[in-house]
This record gives sequence, C-alpha cells and structure tokens, in this order.
Amino acid sequence: MNDRIREILSWYASENPGVRTNLARMLNHGRLGGTGKMVILPVDQGFEHGPARSFAPNPAGYDPRYHFQLAIEAGCNAYAAPLGFLEAGVSDYCGEVPLILKCNNHDILNDEKDPISAVTSGVSDALRLGCVAVGFTIYPASAERTEMYQQLRELTEEAKAAGLAVVVWSYPRGSSLSKEGETAIDVVTYAAQIAAQLGADIIKVKLPGAKVELAEAQKVYQKYEIPISTLAERVHHVIQSSFDGRRIVIFSGGAATEDEKFFEEVRAIRDGGGFGSIVGRNSFQRKKSDALKFLGTVMGIYEGSVK
Amino acid sequence: MNDRIREILSWYASENPGVRTNLARMLNHGRLGGTGKMVILPVDQGFEHGPARSFAPNPAGYDPRYHFQLAIEAGCNAYAAPLGFLEAGVSDYCGEVPLILKCNNHDILNDEKDPISAVTSGVSDALRLGCVAVGFTIYPASAERTEMYQQLRELTEEAKAAGLAVVVWSYPRGSSLSKEGETAIDVVTYAAQIAAQLGADIIKVKLPGAKVELAEAQKVYQKYEIPISTLAERVHHVIQSSFDGRRIVIFSGGAATEDEKFFEEVRAIRDGGGFGSIVGRNSFQRKKSDALKFLGTVMGIYEGSVK
Amino acid sequence: MNDRIREILSWYASENPGVRTNLARMLNHGRLGGTGKMVILPVDQGFEHGPARSFAPNPAGYDPRYHFQLAIEAGCNAYAAPLGFLEAGVSDYCGEVPLILKCNNHDILNDEKDPISAVTSGVSDALRLGCVAVGFTIYPASAERTEMYQQLRELTEEAKAAGLAVVVWSYPRGSSLSKEGETAIDVVTYAAQIAAQLGADIIKVKLPGAKVELAEAQKVYQKYEIPISTLAERVHHVIQSSFDGRRIVIFSGGAATEDEKFFEEVRAIRDGGGFGSIVGRNSFQRKKSDALKFLGTVMGIYEGSVK
Amino acid sequence: MNDRIREILSWYASENPGVRTNLARMLNHGRLGGTGKMVILPVDQGFEHGPARSFAPNPAGYDPRYHFQLAIEAGCNAYAAPLGFLEAGVSDYCGEVPLILKCNNHDILNDEKDPISAVTSGVSDALRLGCVAVGFTIYPASAERTEMYQQLRELTEEAKAAGLAVVVWSYPRGSSLSKEGETAIDVVTYAAQIAAQLGADIIKVKLPGAKVELAEAQKVYQKYEIPISTLAERVHHVIQSSFDGRRIVIFSGGAATEDEKFFEEVRAIRDGGGFGSIVGRNSFQRKKSDALKFLGTVMGIYEGSVK
Amino acid sequence: MNDRIREILSWYASENPGVRTNLARMLNHGRLGGTGKMVILPVDQGFEHGPARSFAPNPAGYDPRYHFQLAIEAGCNAYAAPLGFLEAGVSDYCGEVPLILKCNNHDILNDEKDPISAVTSGVSDALRLGCVAVGFTIYPASAERTEMYQQLRELTEEAKAAGLAVVVWSYPRGSSLSKEGETAIDVVTYAAQIAAQLGADIIKVKLPGAKVELAEAQKVYQKYEIPISTLAERVHHVIQSSFDGRRIVIFSGGAATEDEKFFEEVRAIRDGGGFGSIVGRNSFQRKKSDALKFLGTVMGIYEGSVK
Repeated sequence: MNDRIREILSWYASENPGVRTNLARMLNHGRLGGTGKMVILPVDQGFEHGPARSFAPNPAGYDPRYHFQLAIEAGCNAYAAPLGFLEAGVSDYCGEVPLILKCNNHDILNDEKDPISAVTSGVSDALRLGCVAVGFTIYPASAERTEMYQQLRELTEEAKAAGLAVVVWSYPRGSSLSKEGETAIDVVTYAAQIAAQLGADIIKVKLPGAKVELAEAQKVYQKYEIPISTLAERVHHVIQSSFDGRRIVIFSGGAATEDEKFFEEVRAIRDGGGFGSIVGRNSFQRKKSDALKFLGTVMGIYEGSVK
Repeated sequence: MNDRIREILSWYASENPGVRTNLARMLNHGRLGGTGKMVILPVDQGFEHGPARSFAPNPAGYDPRYHFQLAIEAGCNAYAAPLGFLEAGVSDYCGEVPLILKCNNHDILNDEKDPISAVTSGVSDALRLGCVAVGFTIYPASAERTEMYQQLRELTEEAKAAGLAVVVWSYPRGSSLSKEGETAIDVVTYAAQIAAQLGADIIKVKLPGAKVELAEAQKVYQKYEIPISTLAERVHHVIQSSFDGRRIVIFSGGAATEDEKFFEEVRAIRDGGGFGSIVGRNSFQRKKSDALKFLGTVMGIYEGSVK
Repeated sequence: MNDRIREILSWYASENPGVRTNLARMLNHGRLGGTGKMVILPVDQGFEHGPARSFAPNPAGYDPRYHFQLAIEAGCNAYAAPLGFLEAGVSDYCGEVPLILKCNNHDILNDEKDPISAVTSGVSDALRLGCVAVGFTIYPASAERTEMYQQLRELTEEAKAAGLAVVVWSYPRGSSLSKEGETAIDVVTYAAQIAAQLGADIIKVKLPGAKVELAEAQKVYQKYEIPISTLAERVHHVIQSSFDGRRIVIFSGGAATEDEKFFEEVRAIRDGGGFGSIVGRNSFQRKKSDALKFLGTVMGIYEGSVK
Repeated sequence: MNDRIREILSWYASENPGVRTNLARMLNHGRLGGTGKMVILPVDQGFEHGPARSFAPNPAGYDPRYHFQLAIEAGCNAYAAPLGFLEAGVSDYCGEVPLILKCNNHDILNDEKDPISAVTSGVSDALRLGCVAVGFTIYPASAERTEMYQQLRELTEEAKAAGLAVVVWSYPRGSSLSKEGETAIDVVTYAAQIAAQLGADIIKVKLPGAKVELAEAQKVYQKYEIPISTLAERVHHVIQSSFDGRRIVIFSGGAATEDEKFFEEVRAIRDGGGFGSIVGRNSFQRKKSDALKFLGTVMGIYEGSVK
Repeated sequence: MNDRIREILSWYASENPGVRTNLARMLNHGRLGGTGKMVILPVDQGFEHGPARSFAPNPAGYDPRYHFQLAIEAGCNAYAAPLGFLEAGVSDYCGEVPLILKCNNHDILNDEKDPISAVTSGVSDALRLGCVAVGFTIYPASAERTEMYQQLRELTEEAKAAGLAVVVWSYPRGSSLSKEGETAIDVVTYAAQIAAQLGADIIKVKLPGAKVELAEAQKVYQKYEIPISTLAERVHHVIQSSFDGRRIVIFSGGAATEDEKFFEEVRAIRDGGGFGSIVGRNSFQRKKSDALKFLGTVMGIYEGSVK
C-alpha cells in the first residue's frame, strides 16, 4: 500500500479494519489503483429510468453480465448496481471487480414531488454477493428526507459492523427546490455535508452550478467572497465542505453529453481536488469498444497521462 | 434433467440450491415438464373480484379442491392460490402439483386509486403447506409502490433463505396511469425490469399493447426504432427487458375471451420467446372437460404439437 | 365424536390437532353439541355501543358474571367477549363454557367513515384465560381494511400455533358502501369469501338482503340467474361462497327485533344450510328467564325439535 | 386484611398475585387504608399545563420533593406523577407512599383537536422506581383513540406480567365532542366501560353532568328512565357501568374550585358508591398546611368522620 | 470531588452510578471543573444550517479536528457534535475532552412548519466513540412533538442503561407559535419543564424574552406577579421551572452577536442561577485565538474572575 492510500485511510481512523480494508480494495483496484482517484461504473438506470431508455442505445446492456465485463475491461475501481443486476451476473465474475450493492431504488412510474426510494436490498445481500460496499441514495430537500436519513443510519450501522464501506448518493430533490436549485453550489455542498455527517465513507454528488439557492446562504457567499465562478473552484468548495477534504467525494456527470465537454468536467474535478467520477450513461450507452476508449481518456486525465 | 432446464437454472447461479431445486420442480412438472415452458393455474379471483364473479360461471369452482384437481389433470406446472384456498384443499393432494402460495391479496370492496394489497400469508405458511414458491403482487405506478417493494424485499429474503422460489405479479396501476397505459409497452417492460431488479425468479406481466406511455420513453423508442408493432415483437421486447432473457417471464391472458384469440396470443408469446402463460379465468370458468381441452391446446402450442 | 362432527373437522385437515380439538370443543358443547349447529352468545356491545344502550334494558347485564351464567344455562356452544368482560368473570366459571376472546374492538365515540377496530387483546390473554378461540372483526370496504387483514393474519398465525381456533366477524363497512350495501348479497358473500381466504375457522356474517351492490357483480347474478330471492337461498349462497360449505359460517341477527321474525330468520339459516347463529342483543337484553326461553326456541329450530 | 379489602380483591381474581398485592398496598395505605376508599394525589400538571400555571400559586410545588411530602403527610393512598418528577424525588422517600408512574403525557404547546399523549415512560421505569402501578391516559372520542387503546394494551400486558396494577385516566376528548359533551353522563359512562373492557384495574373519570350527548343513547335513557338528575345518581350510574361495581372507579374534581362545592361533590361520590377522589390542583396549589386540612376533610367525608 | 459537585450529583440520586460518573466527568472537566458551571462547545451547524453558513467565517472549522482542538484549548466542559464530525476527529483526541454525541439532526433544505429531526446516531455509536453523553433535540409546539418525545424516551432508556448522561435541546417551534413566541418566557419554561419530566440530565434552552405567549399562562403571571422583567429574573424562573433548580440547565446564546452583549447575557445567566452556556457560532466562527479569548471571558464570568 502506498503513502497516498495510507493517508486517505488515515481519515477513516474511526472505522473498523473491515471497513478500511474494503475502502483499500476499491482504492487499489483497476487502472487508477493506488492513485487515490476512482472511477466507478454505476448501472441502476434500468430501475430508475426504465429498460429501453437505459439500454436501447447499446442493447448489449440489457444483459446483466455486460456491465461486469465493461467494468473489468475498463479497469474501474468498482461496479455498483441493484440487487437483481448483481445477482444475475456475479457468479461469472467473482472477485474480478469490487462490487457496490445499491440498496435503495426509485422508479418514475409514479413521479412524486417529494421522492423517496424503496429499500430493495441490504447488508446480508451484500455479504452473500461478495460486495465491498453498500450504496444508498438520499434526497435532501424532499419532505421524506427524515425517513431516508434514518434508513441510511440503520443501513450504515449494520454495514459497518459487517466491515462494508458505505457509499451515499446525495441528490437534493423535492418540492421546495427548483430544478436549477438541485445543483446550486450551496445546495450541493450542503448535500455533501449531510452525507458526511451521516457517516458516509464515499460521497457522490452532482457537479454544482454557480447558482446560490438559499437566501441565507447567499449572504455568506457574498460577504466572504467564496470563489465559485469556475467549476474547479466549485469542486474545491464541495471537497472543503466534506470535512475539509477528509472524505472521498466523487462526482457524477449526469446525462450523456458531448465527450469533450465531459472531459473538461473531469479536468475540473481533478483540478478542484475531487476524487473521481461515477460514469453511468456516458459509458454503457455506447459500444463497448467506444466505452473503453472513453473511460480510458477519463482515467488518463485522473492519472495524469492525458491532459 | 435435460440441457434446456440446466441452461435455465444456470441463470439463477446466485440462488441457493434450495431455490434452484424448487424452480426445477416447476420446470420439470406436468405436460410441459422439461420444455422450459410453463402453464400455471392461478385462482385468487375469489379474493380479488369476489366469489360470484369468479365461480358462478362454473360453480364447481366454489370448492377449493376443484382447482387442485384441474391443475393436476391438465398437467399444469404449478397451482397458485391464497392461503385459505390452499389450506382448504392441500391435504388431499400433497405432492401432486407444485404449489405457489399467493402471499398478498387485494379486494375491490374499496377500490382506491393507488392500490396496495394486504399481506395475507408468508413463508412459514408456504413451508407448512408444502409449497415450492411464494407469489406476490406489486403495482408499480401506485403511490404505494415503495411500501410494496419493501414488503416484497422482506418476503424474498425470507423465502429464498428457506429455499422457496419467488414469483412476482408486476401490474402497473395507479393514479398516474391511464387504463390503456397499464399495458403500454414501455410500462410493461419497465414493470418486468423492476421485478427482475427486485430479485424475482419468475415474473408475471400482462401482454403489452403497442402504445408507448411515457414521453421520455417515446423518444427512445422512436430514435432506436425498437420493433413493437406485432405482439410477438412486444413479447420479445419484454423478455429482452428482463435481463436479456435470463429470467423466466410468463404472461397473463386477462379476462375471458374467445378461445381462438387466446390461442393467437399464446402463439405470439411462444414466437416472441416468452416462457409461458398463467391462465386463470379462461380455464376455471368453464366446465372441467372444456377446460382440459382448452389447456391442452395451450400446452400443445407451447410444446409444438399444436400449431 | 359423531360422524357429523368428524366430517366437519375433516374440512380443517390443514389445521394442527390443537385447533381441531378446540373446534370440536365448541361443536360438542351445550344443547346443540354434536349436531354440527352452533349458537354463540357474544357480548361486546358495552364497548361497541356503550353501556346504557347495551345493558339498561336488562340491568343484570352490567355484571360481567351474568353473561357467563346465561351462556351456561342456555347451553350455548360458546361465549364471546372482550378482555375486560372475560377477565372479570372467568374465575367463577372455569371450564363451564367454551370462551372466545374478542381481540379487537371499536367504539362509536368517534364514528369515522372508514372504521378500524383497536387491537385490545391477544393470544397470550386467550391462553391465560382458558379460551378455545380468538375472535376478530374485519370491515371489508373500509379504506383501513388492508391494515385489518394484516392484523388478522398476525393474530391467526400466532393463535393457530397455540392451538386456538380463529373466529372472524366480517362486516363490510366504509365510505364506499351505502348502508343498504353493507348487507347486499354480493357484498356479504364477498366478505365471507375474504374471511375464508384469510384462514378463518369460523366465519360470522350478517344476514344478507336481496340487493346486489356492485355493477360488475350484478351482471353475473343476472347472467347466471343465481337464486337470491328468498332468505334461505341467500344463506345457501353465502355458504357456497365460503368454500362450498367447507367452512363453518354463522349469522348474526342484528338489532333486537320481534321474536317471531327472528325465528323465521333462524329457520331460513337452517334451511339454507347455515351452521347457526350468534345472538347478542336479542338474548341478553331481556330477563334471563325470557332469554332462556328465547334461546331454547332458537336451538330447538336448529336441532329440529321446534319447527 | 379486612373483609372489605378481601371483597374488592375478589373482583380481580383473574389478576396474578403480584397485581393483587399492589392493589392491596394502595387500598391499605394511608388514612383511608382498609376502608375501600382512596384519595390519590396526582401531579402531572407541570407537563400537561406548564410549570407556572401549575406551581405559581404555591411555589413550593416547583420542587419535586414537595409532592411526596404532601402525599405522605396527608395520608394519601398513592402519589402519581410523570417520570421526571418521580425520579427527582423518589430516593428520599423510598417505600413511604405507593407510587403510580404516569406513563404518557400531553402538553398544550400544540393543542390539536384530536389529542394523543406521548408515551414517556414504561414498566421498566416503574419497576426500578419502586412503583405499585402504572398510569395511562386515553382520550376516547379522539380520532387517535385506536392508537392509544393499543398502546395501553401493550403497557397493560407488560405491567401486569410484572405484577404492577394499571390505572387508566379515561377522558373523552376530540373533534366529534362538544366541550360539554366531554362530561355528558352517557359519554363518561362509556369512557368508564371502555377502560374496564381494556383491563384497567383502577379507572379515573371526570364527574359527569346531566347532559346526554349521543342521540342513540338518549333514546335509551328516556325509555328506561335511568335516574341521572342528581350527582350521586350519576356517580352510581358510572359505577354500574364499570362492571356493576366490580372495578375501582375514582373521580377527579377538575379545576380548583370553592372548597365547599368540592366537599359536596365528594359527598355525592360517597353516596353514589364511588371509590374515591384523585385530587390534584385543589391540593398542591395551596399552602401545605391548608392542603392538609383540605385533604383531611375530604378523607373525613369518605371515612364517615366528617359529614 | 468537591461539595458543590457532590450536591449537584445528589439531585440525580435515581440515576445509576454510570450516569452520575459521566455527569461528574463533565462537571469536573476543563477550566470550570468543580465550579458547578459548564461551558459546552456544540458544532452541529454544518448539518443544521449548511457548511458555508457555518464555516466560511472561519474556514479552519471545515476540518472536524479543529473543534476538538478548540474545545480542548479553551477548557470547555464538553464538545457536542453529530456522528460524522465526531467520527472524523475523535481518534486523534481520545479522552482529551468529554464528548456528547448529538443523536438527531435537522437540515433546512426543506424547512417545514412543524419540524422533526432525523435520528442519525445512537447509543452504540456513543459508546464506541467514547462519549459521556448523548444529545437530542425536541421541538415542543411542533405537531410532530409526540414522535420526538417518544424517540427521546427510547434513547434515554437505552443511554442511561449504558451509563450515558442525556442532554436535551428543548426548542419550541411549530405552526402554532409565532417566532417571538418561541422564546416567550412561559414557552421556554414550559419547554424546560417538559425536558425535565422526560428525564433529561442536562437541559439546554434558549434565553427567554419577557413576552408571555399563552393566554391561560398570562393570567397566572399577572395574578401571582411572577418577576420576569430582567433577564436574570427570567433565567431564575427557568431554573425554578426545572425542578426548582435540581436539574442542570444551560443556555444558548443563539446567533453571533456583539461580544459585550453576549457577556451581559452570561452575567444574567450567572446571576439568575443558571448553570452555564452552550456556545457555538460565537466561538467557532472567529479565529481560534479570538475564540479562546472570548471563551476565556465567558468562563471568567462564570468562575468569578471576570466581572
């Protein structure tokens, strides 16, 4: 284990050796192993958006085994998916890539204003499937957030006792936020802070915009002239807001977009001190050869081999 | 055990031997045993629609023993019913047909917009009654779906630990869907995907229509020109959406209809790669001799002896 | 044990010997013991309607011991009451009459549109008080019915494991039913079917009227010309709807009424194949000597000694 | 133990010896010990109405120890209070007065139409504090009453298993009752009946007025000419409605009032066959010397030494 | 242990030795150790108000380790924070300052009218992190208060059984209170009383204003001429309302304000018999050297070395 990984693990000194071992497994796996950076492949869109919207662009993705193969060949640090997808493929790939069991899920067949995901799996599933971590989504700003925080607390307590790391997707959504407000810089940093305070080992947030949503926060951003004009500055502010850089925070790119724009965002994450990316639709919604090339560029930017 | 059954079981490699044994029991039972196709007799209409609507057309069906006899004589792969119906007949037919205990039920004496079924039995009941599987209905699109998914998750965890297979009826219903939308192709495939992600071993959906309900989905169906004009194509798309054919999906015919129309649907299921039918009202709401003939034709289509 | 009782018990072959023993205790007790008919004394009106409305007509009934004495002297098959009434009298009458602990209760101090009873006692109470069965009310058609079905399921599971029989009061009530609809023939038979499917050993329903409430049901009653014009025909249809006569179904007479009218109803229950009556207000709201005479006539009709 | 106490205990023959022992401890304690009458000091007003409204009239009452001293010096049968008040004083007075732990409480900082109290302590607390009983308030007529009855049932089951007696405050309140209706004679007797049916050992109700609230009840009161014109008659009717006098029922005097009026009420309780009083604000909201004199008169009326 | 600490501990004679030991650890720690006064550093604002609003004024505070250092160097009696903040720093400071785990938290991304905090950690966390106490916020006046009281009761029961002290933040908030009403004298004293009755060992309230909110209370304040015109008088009244001074009550200063005004408030707390301050934003939102000076003055006022 190199010094950078030792340093990162030192931030988790309150965790038991089991949790730190599983964090190390992710940090030391794949092409970015040992760099302290991470690229994770998440595939929960079949549940979250429906199968055709997720897999029609690259029908190979209907097969649960495809995503294991993609994550392995691309050298991702981990692969995250719901119960069904992991169960339907894991037996062919035991031990080939660290797995994160996504333990709650939300569909859009009834798209309520204040969403809450259903708890769809848990620690015993993660253990029997050989996972290194559990994943959980919270929607701060939803009227249902109290319930979600408490579900996460229960999952976290049980997961860590079993030596599993906890990865939290913290996505502000709800009736009291505008669409743009969901990625406002003060809202994203608040979401990261909440996840950190709830005990998340790895935090996943969306890339923040320059908007400040809350009036009380706006006063502070102006008074203290917090720099948030560039994306790298905003990433830096997110990292700062996550215990001053002492928690692993990774960013999602969101909807499929132009490659070069995506790479620019990755550079901003890197320059702002972010720990990496979680890349779903931009990777599995193109042919595998294209995806491997795409992910190769992303990882190259993080490891410094690509500008 | 023949190669086709071995192949099907290979998709369930994450399940323990108990679950795979019970899947094999269903796949190898009855006239279609060993073909990889299934015809299941379900009789929960007494609870779901009331006794007269269910049994007046063929009053022999008021007697719980009748349906055991029908399933056995017709050579069905399994018989599914609620607690009371199984309890009131099983002692006379122990081991003669694989049984599925339907563990939740809904009546229409108070027909709410966003339905949820009551949990009416569970794993301990299934075990003491000699069942091979538990059955559970979810209504994706209902505002109550989160609760149902979580109930299913608990049942699934307990059932599989006891070696029971899990059969999920996935029927989109709720205030946000039109009646026609309940069988829209994007909605039915989404419902199948959700059931698969939740860990269903066998998925039961309704035959889909050609409508696409959700605007975001419609864009994808058009852009990628997903073929959905024939029923067989739509069945194929459902199968694809259920882990690319690696989960058993069977179809319900719905309300009683003309026989020839029903057989046409069975042919489409067969041609689209579906795994079989679950035939309730079309079988038990006619005289037993007629029902045996009718089911014989259905099975004949699946096994290839009838065109 | 005579053949009729053996036959009745054979319908309950799925139950453990403890439950069948307690069913036999009721069937073999009192004046109607061994006939396969039952008359049960229920006294939960103090809770359900208030004390003065219940006991002012015959103030002896304020004393919990009175009802034990009445049930014993009349030769009833069983006496059913809430926790407090049983606790306050049982010590003086241990083993003299089979007891049914009514485990949920409802008052009318806040008479909501969609009622649910409170769970007021349970299996451990029934066991320590020497009861043979637990009783539970469900209100199909109430928006709260899902919760009630699930409470009943839990009680049933626990009760049967302890060898107690389960008696279900199935009374359709709720915002979606008219007052007359509560005793419509399709609604009462539906309520009986639901109780049977939920695992009830003994089902108690109200005597049905000739109205058909639900439009979908009405089509079936007309198409198949189900005979429901006489009370005896309707009783027969209820029995048919309760697993074709393979579950014990008894009827309540409702509010106090003229004796001769009541006896006519008893004859219809007998002629329609019903298993007996549960007689509350008509028995305990008159002097004991009158009540004994009244109940004697009822039992006489059932045993055939009175026309 | 004298014959009257033996007689009272005989009504509780279903209770285990532990419960009967604790009932005896209260009945045999203090100035009224052995008379079968009780005067209990309750001090939960700090929680229910706020501290200044409760204790400003006699600031000594801010100190939790004061009320122990008052109950002991006055010779009350028992002292009842919430967790905090008992915890903060009990160590100085172990065994000097029977204690009732009031296990739920309600404040008026948010005074809802359909109240429910919070469960604030339980059986393990009562046992470690040396109590003889638990106390619990229900609000029949509140839309939340079902939940309260079920909470009481759980508490009762646990308490009696531990040998503790159960004291129920049964106060009808809720959106469907007028203020005057809360003390209507039919409503108060109904509330007493419900408490008795729920298994209360001691029932506390408010003194009833002559109004009859419910239309259905009114018919009965008129038809049977139930005497309710004097307070003593109404007390008698409450006692009758509580299992014909076979449950201990005590009455609260309500808000502080003129002493002579209060003594008149006590005489009516005595003459109507009531078992005693629970005297809160009228005792602790005056100087201790005055309170001792006041309570002395009340006890004198019950024991017959004062007219 | 000196006599004052012994005296304070004597008020907690009902607590087990474990709880009293942990109370003693706080009372005997830091600069005010042994004085019977306390100054506690709480840092939950990252969760409650968001990271920038909390830490931008002094960015060193983004780092969880900073607050441990501040509390230690300032000689605070204890440091209180949510799970994440304690976990991320405790390993470097084991045993250097008594820790209070704040077990519930609330954010303002969805700021509802009747708030309830999410339970975010518990007793097992407090124990594994070496804490001396758990902290919990209740919002009396919220429509959700019943749930909060019951959550607190469960936490308290478990915490005290494990020897942990219980610190309750009692902040009236909710739809039925005006903003000014939240700190009305009758409301704050009521909130303190509720916390005390619920079993709090240490109570934290806001400094009260001179307003009386509730009409019924106003009558009492006027009739008994309760002195509430000066802040010291109001503090005295809060202490009186918390079991006549037999519970430790500390006060929060609220939002950052001018230093001299803050010191005046501290003097009023001291003069009114308050037990100390909980100082968050006024301490960690300035440079550490300034904060140490500021806290030094506060402590000096309490210990008498500063006027």
